Amino acid sequence: RLRQAQKNNDTQTGKFSITSLPVHLTVSPAAERLRYILGDDEDTMPTPTLFTEMDTLQQEDDELEWRESARWVKFEEKVEEGGERWSKPHVSTLSLHSLFELRTCLQTGTVLLDLEGYSLPQIIDDVIERQIEEGLIGPELRDKISFVLLRKHRHQTKKPIHRSLADLGKSGSGVSECSIFISPSIPTHTSRSMNDIADTPSTDQLKNKFMKKIPRDAEASNVLVGEVDFLEKPFVAFVRLSQATTLGGLTEVPVPTRFLFVLLEPPGKAKSYNEIGRAIATLMVDDLFSDVAYKARDREDLIAGIDEFLDEVIVLPPGEWDPKIRIEPPKKIPSADQRKSVFSLNELGQMNGTAGGGGPLGEELAYTGRFCGGLFLDIKRKLPWYLSDIYEGFHIQSISVVLFIYLGCITNAITFGGLLGDATDNYQGVMESFLGTALAGTVFCLFSGQPLIILSSMGPILIFEKLLYEFSKNNGIDYMELRLWIGIHSCVQCLFLVATDASYIIKYMTRFTEEGFSSLISFIFISDAIKKMVGTFKYYPINIDFKPDYVTAYKCECLAPDTSKSILGIDLNWTNTLDWTQLSKKECVKYGGSLVGKSCKYVPDLALMSFILFFGTYTMTVTLKKFKFSRYFPTKVRPLISDFSIFMSIMTFVGLDMLIGLETPKLIVPTEFKPTRADRGWFVMPFGKNPWWVYLASSVPALLVTILIFMDQQISAVIVNRKENKLKKGCGYHLDLLWVGFLMVACSFMGLPWYVAATVISIAHIDSLKMESESSAPGEQPQFLGVREQRLTGILVFVLTGVSIFLAPILQFIPMPVLYGVFLYMGVASLSGIQFWDRIKLIMMPAKHQPDFSYLRQVPLRRVHLFTLVQIVCLAVLWILKSTFLAIIFPIMILGLMVIRKMLDMVFSQHDLAWLDDILPEKEKKKKEDEKKNTKKDKKKGKGGDDSEDVSVLVARLFKERHRLLGFK
Amino acid sequence: RLRQAQKNNDTQTGKFSITSLPVHLTVSPAAERLRYILGDDEDTMPTPTLFTEMDTLQQEDDELEWRESARWVKFEEKVEEGGERWSKPHVSTLSLHSLFELRTCLQTGTVLLDLEGYSLPQIIDDVIERQIEEGLIGPELRDKISFVLLRKHRHQTKKPIHRSLADLGKSGSGVSECSIFISPSIPTHTSRSMNDIADTPSTDQLKNKFMKKIPRDAEASNVLVGEVDFLEKPFVAFVRLSQATTLGGLTEVPVPTRFLFVLLEPPGKAKSYNEIGRAIATLMVDDLFSDVAYKARDREDLIAGIDEFLDEVIVLPPGEWDPKIRIEPPKKIPSADQRKSVFSLNELGQMNGTAGGGGPLGEELAYTGRFCGGLFLDIKRKLPWYLSDIYEGFHIQSISVVLFIYLGCITNAITFGGLLGDATDNYQGVMESFLGTALAGTVFCLFSGQPLIILSSMGPILIFEKLLYEFSKNNGIDYMELRLWIGIHSCVQCLFLVATDASYIIKYMTRFTEEGFSSLISFIFISDAIKKMVGTFKYYPINIDFKPDYVTAYKCECLAPDTSKSILGIDLNWTNTLDWTQLSKKECVKYGGSLVGKSCKYVPDLALMSFILFFGTYTMTVTLKKFKFSRYFPTKVRPLISDFSIFMSIMTFVGLDMLIGLETPKLIVPTEFKPTRADRGWFVMPFGKNPWWVYLASSVPALLVTILIFMDQQISAVIVNRKENKLKKGCGYHLDLLWVGFLMVACSFMGLPWYVAATVISIAHIDSLKMESESSAPGEQPQFLGVREQRLTGILVFVLTGVSIFLAPILQFIPMPVLYGVFLYMGVASLSGIQFWDRIKLIMMPAKHQPDFSYLRQVPLRRVHLFTLVQIVCLAVLWILKSTFLAIIFPIMILGLMVIRKMLDMVFSQHDLAWLDDILPEKEKKKKEDEKKNTKKDKKKGKGGDDSEDVSVLVARLFKERHRLLGFK
Repeated sequence: RLRQAQKNNDTQTGKFSITSLPVHLTVSPAAERLRYILGDDEDTMPTPTLFTEMDTLQQEDDELEWRESARWVKFEEKVEEGGERWSKPHVSTLSLHSLFELRTCLQTGTVLLDLEGYSLPQIIDDVIERQIEEGLIGPELRDKISFVLLRKHRHQTKKPIHRSLADLGKSGSGVSECSIFISPSIPTHTSRSMNDIADTPSTDQLKNKFMKKIPRDAEASNVLVGEVDFLEKPFVAFVRLSQATTLGGLTEVPVPTRFLFVLLEPPGKAKSYNEIGRAIATLMVDDLFSDVAYKARDREDLIAGIDEFLDEVIVLPPGEWDPKIRIEPPKKIPSADQRKSVFSLNELGQMNGTAGGGGPLGEELAYTGRFCGGLFLDIKRKLPWYLSDIYEGFHIQSISVVLFIYLGCITNAITFGGLLGDATDNYQGVMESFLGTALAGTVFCLFSGQPLIILSSMGPILIFEKLLYEFSKNNGIDYMELRLWIGIHSCVQCLFLVATDASYIIKYMTRFTEEGFSSLISFIFISDAIKKMVGTFKYYPINIDFKPDYVTAYKCECLAPDTSKSILGIDLNWTNTLDWTQLSKKECVKYGGSLVGKSCKYVPDLALMSFILFFGTYTMTVTLKKFKFSRYFPTKVRPLISDFSIFMSIMTFVGLDMLIGLETPKLIVPTEFKPTRADRGWFVMPFGKNPWWVYLASSVPALLVTILIFMDQQISAVIVNRKENKLKKGCGYHLDLLWVGFLMVACSFMGLPWYVAATVISIAHIDSLKMESESSAPGEQPQFLGVREQRLTGILVFVLTGVSIFLAPILQFIPMPVLYGVFLYMGVASLSGIQFWDRIKLIMMPAKHQPDFSYLRQVPLRRVHLFTLVQIVCLAVLWILKSTFLAIIFPIMILGLMVIRKMLDMVFSQHDLAWLDDILPEKEKKKKEDEKKNTKKDKKKGKGGDDSEDVSVLVARLFKERHRLLGFK
Repeated sequence: RLRQAQKNNDTQTGKFSITSLPVHLTVSPAAERLRYILGDDEDTMPTPTLFTEMDTLQQEDDELEWRESARWVKFEEKVEEGGERWSKPHVSTLSLHSLFELRTCLQTGTVLLDLEGYSLPQIIDDVIERQIEEGLIGPELRDKISFVLLRKHRHQTKKPIHRSLADLGKSGSGVSECSIFISPSIPTHTSRSMNDIADTPSTDQLKNKFMKKIPRDAEASNVLVGEVDFLEKPFVAFVRLSQATTLGGLTEVPVPTRFLFVLLEPPGKAKSYNEIGRAIATLMVDDLFSDVAYKARDREDLIAGIDEFLDEVIVLPPGEWDPKIRIEPPKKIPSADQRKSVFSLNELGQMNGTAGGGGPLGEELAYTGRFCGGLFLDIKRKLPWYLSDIYEGFHIQSISVVLFIYLGCITNAITFGGLLGDATDNYQGVMESFLGTALAGTVFCLFSGQPLIILSSMGPILIFEKLLYEFSKNNGIDYMELRLWIGIHSCVQCLFLVATDASYIIKYMTRFTEEGFSSLISFIFISDAIKKMVGTFKYYPINIDFKPDYVTAYKCECLAPDTSKSILGIDLNWTNTLDWTQLSKKECVKYGGSLVGKSCKYVPDLALMSFILFFGTYTMTVTLKKFKFSRYFPTKVRPLISDFSIFMSIMTFVGLDMLIGLETPKLIVPTEFKPTRADRGWFVMPFGKNPWWVYLASSVPALLVTILIFMDQQISAVIVNRKENKLKKGCGYHLDLLWVGFLMVACSFMGLPWYVAATVISIAHIDSLKMESESSAPGEQPQFLGVREQRLTGILVFVLTGVSIFLAPILQFIPMPVLYGVFLYMGVASLSGIQFWDRIKLIMMPAKHQPDFSYLRQVPLRRVHLFTLVQIVCLAVLWILKSTFLAIIFPIMILGLMVIRKMLDMVFSQHDLAWLDDILPEKEKKKKEDEKKNTKKDKKKGKGGDDSEDVSVLVARLFKERHRLLGFK
């Protein structure tokens, strides 16, 4: 740091000087001073936020007045003189010169700390008195200075729109006069009133909407800079009031003033003095300096504060930057605490604390060793949140989320139900699918450890059911009963896994496995959506050879079957009564007629219309989703449009479809509450239809189901619980599994499909529940706060699914292609934000255009690409396997991914892996065990290095964690 | 400015000090020094560009080596240690502390200026010798220092891709060793070679592709910073060689070294010393300081250079900016000349010069007062460029431009030809339209003043022809002959306008008129494209009631006319032989059959397919056009994709159309070279068919045509010649008009339509010919250089149009909807970059999100909105008028716009208008006349103020001009 502080008492007016001192290895005197005033009283209240307003003296129609020229909450907002508007908040770029001049100003001017002030005239009197005492000004200037300082203040306020409109024609100025004239309390010096400042805040001040942007406890600091002709040397005063006081119309908003900086100067260099004003204003909003200003004991403390500020400033070379560019506020700025920590003597303390907190996985998946230990911890963790899980769901965002996820769920239920019906001869069909989804989903959202997970049926289970049904049919075993027993066994096995804390093995799933799995599921989603779309083209074939001119040649006629060849003559009479030409296509086929004609095979328009609906829904959703970042519409409308993008797109294209009126394929939900197959009831009896050994033997296929469910459920949970989502209420892997097990038995007894966490829909759920801070200070970037963690949206989605039977009249207007578009969007959206996907994109970018990812700074590009390639190959292999009969053991392949990840330890260094992936937990575990043995209780979360390799890994982790916290992503 | 320069000879080692001095109104000593060394020799050569490389000392396997850690051409590029790659170029953010420390380094260390150096060992010897002489180091350190400084240098070089791939598996480092060991020339001190530096550049250096980024005449400055354990105080040396010399493997690229900065320091503070190295490196690439470094006479000059640099630096407060953020290079940086001008005593000179040049319009449209004065000036201006107009057309960009504009032109020709054929009973049809376009376009592009203008037929002329034809038919006058005479009269009138320099009135067209007109034309283009698309839906009606199941009910049969009712019995036999069911729709109608059936009215799929082609072409073009700004693909491929976006979109959707094979409407061009109407020839005789008075009376309608043509031609020319396009070869309004007149007569004689400049296609032509600088220094933003001004693309477009008859077999594959998509794109694209359009968008933005346009800083928002509203109302009125029969005098309405603009002078202040529009030329003209009277020849373009209002206007203009030049847009 710059250690230039030993003040030379060079207090000659007009000379600005700064002397730097020898660099010792100890701290500089400035830092020592600050450490003394900032470091000693740690338990005092934090200092209030400062709002700084800078007013400059201007002449309007022979009348002097102070006009607001800039303000700072955190960043600078300037009044655009010509535009009569506030500039965008920007980083205050200062000139070094003005900072040095300011330093001299504070050295030479009057510094009044803890002045008892109750009104502006009194404060000004005190300041002038002090200056006369110190011999800085002659007493003859008293009245003149006082007169100038008490001129009225004009603030730049935002007018309500109706007033602006009324004002359109006039060329009046947009500033409002903020003070009313009150009777002068000081003998008049000129013909005009001596004091233009009101004692109480005016209505304009009170009505100022800017107040919302200022924290509640804020205090104001006022900077007054003006040029007057009667002075020969600058008049400088820095005042800190002992109590913050509202000084009438001094400040734009009714915030009490604590600091006052006055600079009146002889004419000629207004620009330069303005810069000094900007410099002190910028300093006043600096976290560190404002602390110093509040706690300063004397002038020297303030100057030490400036020196410390100068020590930390960032300098841009003049040849590489244009000072006229207004720098937009950065996404993230270093926290004041970090800067202050320099003065609290334990610089490392904070950093360790930061790194120690980075392991939510470890805590919740710790192996307790007790019976149901993990489960009890889960319940203990989640129970206190239960009430908030309900009431935090009441938010406008939830409506859009519920609609979005609901549509996703019922589309899924219908598709899956249809396939399952085909596979099991309608033993389980669309109706069962709906009922099962509603039941399982509601129960899970009500009681699970992670209610953000959305349950759904999954592909491997479908294949399993298909094989099982075929097996049962071929071997004369009752399918429903067999299925029930598999469900019972599987549930018992799940309970065993819960009781033994088996979920802790999830710890070995690193980013590699996690992202591999979720990418694959996303790809499947995308490919399914596209496949279904392409299917439409097959289902509604386009007559590509159609010649409009030969429309006369196209027809499709139903011809009666050749009765002469019919063996059964009985029906002949009946068929003869039919008017074959009047039959529809279906009837014709039904009655054995044959369709003859060029147009029989083709369906016009529907395929293309479906494509337009599909693609339109997807494109519009993507476009509207980006609307949050556009410049249009007020700040409150934009995120709303973004949140409701899916809903709006669906509505638009449903509307378009209704408008055109083509018979596109629609969403058809069952309208009656009864099993799809008439010969089955709502309850499956466990005994009676199969021989006894089947009850035992079914535990073998149950094992497969258990593994399937366990892997699928837990990896989806890991993805949902990812650190990036900043979940605060913790998760409950064991509790989740418990309920999945229970629901399996329940579904088996009712003959409903089995349910497990759905990766893509759960990610969509999480993504649409994300919260961002509403920025407070102008220019501050909104921060991602976390996810609206609650149970309400999930419950509503599944309750709605349950009552869909009654919603059928509404739902039948929704074309399927629109829903496929939503599916496509879900799949694509769940890919974004995945590091793997970022790295795939890197392959196509030339090195110099790649974004500044922190891992690119740390790991050579070819290693990054190698890692990506390994992942791509793994996924390709999985994709191929998935397309074969092996799809049934698909979730088990995740274990394969974990093995490959383990092997990567041999190819990549731990340093590289720490940046690209996570470190496998063995080493940490070992360390913890070591620690346990050593019973070093004081090092609870400490990660003391055992050998040199571990240390290097830890350092890498530490840095990574720090980078993440600092917003490097 | 900061005037802190008087050095206190505080040369104690380890102490860094800086003293600022009294601020006088005169210049500081530092500035005075610089003025002396920079200002005196203005006619010397400019100093070469400096490439700076910073190497740090590092230990690898017990071997010391210098490793490149950063480099500067203009911006900093850092070696990412872990990533083994170059960072993106960024603005060097320095700490103030390091700059002060550097200042002390230069005060205390050795400064050797103009050292005779031929090899590194010799230079190092000289430096060490001097240090020993000065008593800064003991002679016992000589060998150690020399050994360290002669270690080999490793540079971070980009590997060719095949080597990187081969390297993928290995974890080797990506740096290349740049020096080969040569036999030591100095007695070895340790077991290792004393000198690792080669004398000649290595192959790695020579092959380094980075060389392309460095200007040809560049010289290198090398910064060496290292930590050694044998020193107790820093060893600092700044060396300027008398002659730039290639010092072996010292520099990454084979650029001769001129400056050498060495800093060796005792261990412990590597970070801080690294920062000093970055500081000097940044200084060395600063334009001003590098000048100082080249011309410095002694140490004090260098320090004055640092002080001047410090005086200009921009300071960012630590609480508002994170020093870890790498700042991207700005779009534009202040030129070095501007900064240097401070030292050339006439600061105002440059500014005046800048503002004086801002009037290309004025010069070319000056009223000469002589017969054909403007025309001769035009020819004089354009003739010298003629050769370059041809050869500058040879560029890959031209291919895409020709295809794009060609497709636009023929689509236009076909549409217009079709309409004209309808209006004139095929006296002029598609064939005439093609021929006329080809003839007029080629001649105009060959000989006109502004060959970037594309001629085309226009709407008002179409209406005129229609009315004229009806008039002729009703009054028995020969249409073609009448038209010929109108053409002759109109040409004569045009020639009169040319001879009298009448085009000078174009000067009164300000941005208001210009943008209003071009927006309107763009809107018409967009609305036409959409209308045509909607027309497709009418032409190919969709059967929205179609039920796929009742396909049997849809048919369309041709029924024979009821012969019993037929009056003529003769044909009966013939019609009876027809198989009516085999007839096509057209034939059926032709033979009097009636079409019966539900499907007769409808055409399946074609409308939706057309929509997909239309919208797809438009969307894909827009998307690909943006590809230039994406991160993907190498830098050379990206602009290519962007340039060929239209071509690629057309090809894609033509391909898609062919693939699907539906009978979408295709582009049909005439295939035979003959007049559309058989009873007319290729030449119209001027006499014989009409009474004599028609020849005279036709001058009245000719007047209307002349005004139409004049306004349309000249306003399009103004839009093309806009300042923003940075045209360098000047324009030729008079010459353009001359040719338009000649072509009118020619077309009239041949019976072809009349042609005039087409606004939208011309803008599209200009836009697709834009050039950007290929950035030289890494990080420098490409600048818009201007337009590829040449005649070749235009000529090719029209020659291609002429031979389209032979291209018919290829062109028939292009579906019309694809071309409508291109039209839509043209219309939308020509709206972008128009200030009016920007201002419309402002209306929908809340004030705080509005972009930082310079006029928003200067003009109150409500005035901006008022101005925009006036423009919108004007356009709305014009749009409505255009939809009535008044469309025929549409171009004349531009005069109305000009009148309204004149009236705005009363509502808006000249200051506001200067920012939102341009100032009307009256005032300038008056001033010029005044000047003429005063015959102040020394103030040729000066704008000396006459009265106070003029001065304010001028100041506003000046500021505006300056802002524009500084890149504020």
